[in-house]
Amino acid sequence: MRGDSTVRIGLLGCGNVGAALVQLVAANGDAVAARTGLRLELTRVAVSDVTRPRTVALAPGVLTADAAGVVDDPEVDLVVEVMGGIEPARSLILTALKAGKPVVTANKELLATHGAELFDAAVKSGVDLLFEAAVCAAIPLMRPLRESLAGDRITRVIGIVNGTTNFILTRMTEGGESFADALAEAQSLGYAERDPTADVEGFDAAAKAAIIASVAFGIDVRAGDVYCEGITGVTTDDIAMAARLGYVVKLLAVADSVPSPGGDQVAVRVHPAMIPLDHPLAAVREAYNAVFVQGDAAGELMFYGRGAGGRPTASAVLGDVVDAASNLRQGTSASAGVAGLATARLRPMDELESQYYLSLDVADKPGVLERVAHAFSRNQVSIVQVLQLGMGEEARLMLVTHTARERDMQATVAELRRLDVVDRVGSLLRVIGPE
Amino acid sequence: MRGDSTVRIGLLGCGNVGAALVQLVAANGDAVAARTGLRLELTRVAVSDVTRPRTVALAPGVLTADAAGVVDDPEVDLVVEVMGGIEPARSLILTALKAGKPVVTANKELLATHGAELFDAAVKSGVDLLFEAAVCAAIPLMRPLRESLAGDRITRVIGIVNGTTNFILTRMTEGGESFADALAEAQSLGYAERDPTADVEGFDAAAKAAIIASVAFGIDVRAGDVYCEGITGVTTDDIAMAARLGYVVKLLAVADSVPSPGGDQVAVRVHPAMIPLDHPLAAVREAYNAVFVQGDAAGELMFYGRGAGGRPTASAVLGDVVDAASNLRQGTSASAGVAGLATARLRPMDELESQYYLSLDVADKPGVLERVAHAFSRNQVSIVQVLQLGMGEEARLMLVTHTARERDMQATVAELRRLDVVDRVGSLLRVIGPE
Repeated sequence: MRGDSTVRIGLLGCGNVGAALVQLVAANGDAVAARTGLRLELTRVAVSDVTRPRTVALAPGVLTADAAGVVDDPEVDLVVEVMGGIEPARSLILTALKAGKPVVTANKELLATHGAELFDAAVKSGVDLLFEAAVCAAIPLMRPLRESLAGDRITRVIGIVNGTTNFILTRMTEGGESFADALAEAQSLGYAERDPTADVEGFDAAAKAAIIASVAFGIDVRAGDVYCEGITGVTTDDIAMAARLGYVVKLLAVADSVPSPGGDQVAVRVHPAMIPLDHPLAAVREAYNAVFVQGDAAGELMFYGRGAGGRPTASAVLGDVVDAASNLRQGTSASAGVAGLATARLRPMDELESQYYLSLDVADKPGVLERVAHAFSRNQVSIVQVLQLGMGEEARLMLVTHTARERDMQATVAELRRLDVVDRVGSLLRVIGPE
Repeated sequence: MRGDSTVRIGLLGCGNVGAALVQLVAANGDAVAARTGLRLELTRVAVSDVTRPRTVALAPGVLTADAAGVVDDPEVDLVVEVMGGIEPARSLILTALKAGKPVVTANKELLATHGAELFDAAVKSGVDLLFEAAVCAAIPLMRPLRESLAGDRITRVIGIVNGTTNFILTRMTEGGESFADALAEAQSLGYAERDPTADVEGFDAAAKAAIIASVAFGIDVRAGDVYCEGITGVTTDDIAMAARLGYVVKLLAVADSVPSPGGDQVAVRVHPAMIPLDHPLAAVREAYNAVFVQGDAAGELMFYGRGAGGRPTASAVLGDVVDAASNLRQGTSASAGVAGLATARLRPMDELESQYYLSLDVADKPGVLERVAHAFSRNQVSIVQVLQLGMGEEARLMLVTHTARERDMQATVAELRRLDVVDRVGSLLRVIGPE
């Protein structure tokens, strides 16, 4: 296999990640060839505008606006998709797979909505569809879940999978900044986009949670299946209260496999949560990501690193390219692990059991605490701890419950909203217990 | 490939790890078969004493005392070696590989002394030799280093790779226990052996460091090439001083790739060190392990988990077994990544540049600090910080230096030992800077 084994790559997209990939192939191509015998060549690169000035040098004739032509080109052995979006990425990937060309993609959005269709197409053609870069960039996660833990039973995955919100929460925690100020800082540093909705509302994390759950549990979970709350309601008071109780507030993606009659159910959710200060995830600061995995035999594992950025993402893409190219030359594929995803038996959010933290702004007068406490007890939710802060004519109540059912807690919140003495129902944070 | 694809395993050794593997195959074999089409069967199990009572159920005729017979058995497709030690493990593995049988091993000691010979034998036969379990048990590390980062350039690996010493240092740090008390506690909990030498002197960590450096940098590093200091000299005073300076003391395995004329040099060392409290490794407590990897493009990554124990180790072994069995059925192998290890160009420890922490017990009288300081300055080592604690007629000096060369620091220490006012030269700790 060593010697003249050139693998010709068709690259779809040459933005931040694509350009970093071009540079990485130029810098490390010789080392890859020395180690694996594979000579990687960027044969065709499809971009939307060929006239735009580029920071990377490409041989004449490599750039083209014809993405379909790149996929169809008989000179292209393997396709890398870093253009993003659903279409035309989906159709291009399906065409490549049907033509027997392995595909490496970093497209989280596409996998979180059409993953099962793409995986099946890959298996049908017997070629690889690899996507390590689609979840948390350079953090090795898909390969450990699929391969390293292939003989184990994964019971839970908890991840900090969005760097923007982790940066914001870190600033709120360590600098006492408001959400608005921390968001503005994240935007000025390029961590948050001008429209931060996808990050701060948890949608980006939900897409990653869907992919993680699919791979960890071998089931078909889509982004739309994921219960999702963002961090826009989290206040510095909530964070201070968490610290007082020995917790830190993080936006978590949680995927649980819950034994139930008729087969395991899977619960997948994204929401801000309080985690104990000595939990390994609590030390994950700034824009870093980390994913905590509970294996039945392996025990607790955690994978940590930069979850975004052109170069980290390109590093993950290139690792997959080397793998797919090697399999292509050997006439094999590694996709079997994510083929034929079973239909997910999703556990309704209502059935979650958790401890909860809730903040309330209430009138500061006699009898209020009694009425609030009654709303909890009427719904079988038991309170562990209360802190009251005076704020002039109002008071802020911060309460922590014993383990309760989500539906009971939601009924409590609904009832509290109807009380005239409650001016505002603030954050509802789920509390992750010590492992 | 799906259907009747049974892979018959010959297991060498059925102690802690082997027994856990037997249980794991029984528990998860069906799930593995459903996902991969591979039916794993433990066909033969070699043990030193077939009459000893066992906790795991094995079919009659499976147990044997004839390890060589298991390897040679035409009914055995794949060999798992969890017996440990150099011989007969080495010969058995070589025989299996030469017969075209893939091997999965958890044998750290063997790989750290004869790795290159075994890898070459695997490549020559075109079959897998996988060893994820040999370093930090269930923490996926070999696969990420070899595959996920295949297109990147690894510049540094820093690991907490010995759970026993991390447990001891955690107790000394959090409970203020002495080394002796913490060791006794580790022994009573089963974390440390009755003879703790291999752990507390750093030999176990050095063997892991050699394997990690070999895989990360593609070079042949043996345990004997690793500079090694243990933690027996670390005191609670050192740890308290570290905390005061914003550091925590950990036993680290460090492998650096250092650019130098004529090609990169590699420096591999194990010693106690001070790391900043906000470094991700600082949060790794108790008997947990973690390995921090710096990739040129990927940036900082960390892998965390239980680095020892029967079930975590068996989980890693079984992940490798599934991989090797799948490759065997497809007629391929993944070993190319660790073939033909280049001869290591080792950087002598003398040439290390680091900040240092040093503790000294000195006579408490005028002029002593001046003489101590003179020993540093004569050797071009510049002091950043000094703390003096009175202890009756003696005083303890704790000093931190600017970045200095190891040879200069060692010359300073030698000179200090000769001073009549210095009663004892205590810990010399290297200081790992913020990344």
